[in-house]
Amino acid sequence: MPGCTFCSIIAGDLPAHVVFEDDAVLAFLDVRPLFAGHVLVVPCQHVDTLPDLPAADLGPYFERVQRLSVAVRSAMGAQGTFVALNNTVSQSVPHLHTHVVPRTRGDGLKGFFWPRTSYRDEEHMAEVAAAIAAAV
Amino acid sequence: MPGCTFCSIIAGDLPAHVVFEDDAVLAFLDVRPLFAGHVLVVPCQHVDTLPDLPAADLGPYFERVQRLSVAVRSAMGAQGTFVALNNTVSQSVPHLHTHVVPRTRGDGLKGFFWPRTSYRDEEHMAEVAAAIAAAV
Repeated sequence: MPGCTFCSIIAGDLPAHVVFEDDAVLAFLDVRPLFAGHVLVVPCQHVDTLPDLPAADLGPYFERVQRLSVAVRSAMGAQGTFVALNNTVSQSVPHLHTHVVPRTRGDGLKGFFWPRTSYRDEEHMAEVAAAIAAAV
Repeated sequence: MPGCTFCSIIAGDLPAHVVFEDDAVLAFLDVRPLFAGHVLVVPCQHVDTLPDLPAADLGPYFERVQRLSVAVRSAMGAQGTFVALNNTVSQSVPHLHTHVVPRTRGDGLKGFFWPRTSYRDEEHMAEVAAAIAAAV
C-alpha cells in the first residue's frame, strides 16, 4: 500500500535486517527491540490488522510466526518467547505485524502483563462474559 | 493433562466465565484482567506452548483467536485489541493460551511495549539477524 513503511520494506525500498522471507511473510529485526533478537513477522500482502487477514491466510501466517518463535529462542539462547500483536491501538504501523521477542527468566519483564485489575464481583464478570458471548 | 488448570476448566471440573466454545477451543474471562473483557483462548487439546501446536491446528486455532478479537472489541466498545501469548517465560499456566485484551486510546497502556532498548550498532544488528536467519 502506498506510504506503508512495511510495504516499502517488503518491496525493498527501505532497508531492514531480514531474518526470513518467503511468499507469505517477511521477518526482520525491530529497530527498537524489547531485547536483542526481537523480530517482526509481517504478511507480504498488506492487511491493516488481524481481523483483516483472510481466513485462508491464518494458518500459513501463524506457521511462520511459530517457526520464528522457535528460531528466535534457539538463536538467542533464550528460555521462551513473547508473541504479541496490537490491533489498531498501540499499533505503530498499520500493517499487521506480530512481535516475537526472546525471553529469559529474570530479564526484567517478569511483570509484563501487570498491572492487572479485577471485576467488581461475580455478577459483573457474568455480565461481561455474556456480552462477549453474544458478540462471537 | 492431569493437574493442568486449563484442562480442568475444559473438562468442566473448574468454573470459568465461558464466552465461546467449540471442538477446537474454549474461551473464557481471565480472572485477573488487564481490562474487563480480557479473554483467554485455549485449545481443547493440551499443548504446552505455541511451538507444540501441530501445524494442522494453527489455522483453526488462530481463526478462533481472530474471531474473539473481533467479538471482544465489539462487545466492550473498544477501539482495538492486544493479542498476546507467552511461551514458557511469564507463562502462568503451561497450557497454550492467547490473551485477547480490549484496548482504548488513553487506557494507560500506551507505553505497553516499553521500555525498548537499542542495538549497539549496525554490526551488532547484522550479527543478531544472521544468527536468527541461520536458525529459522
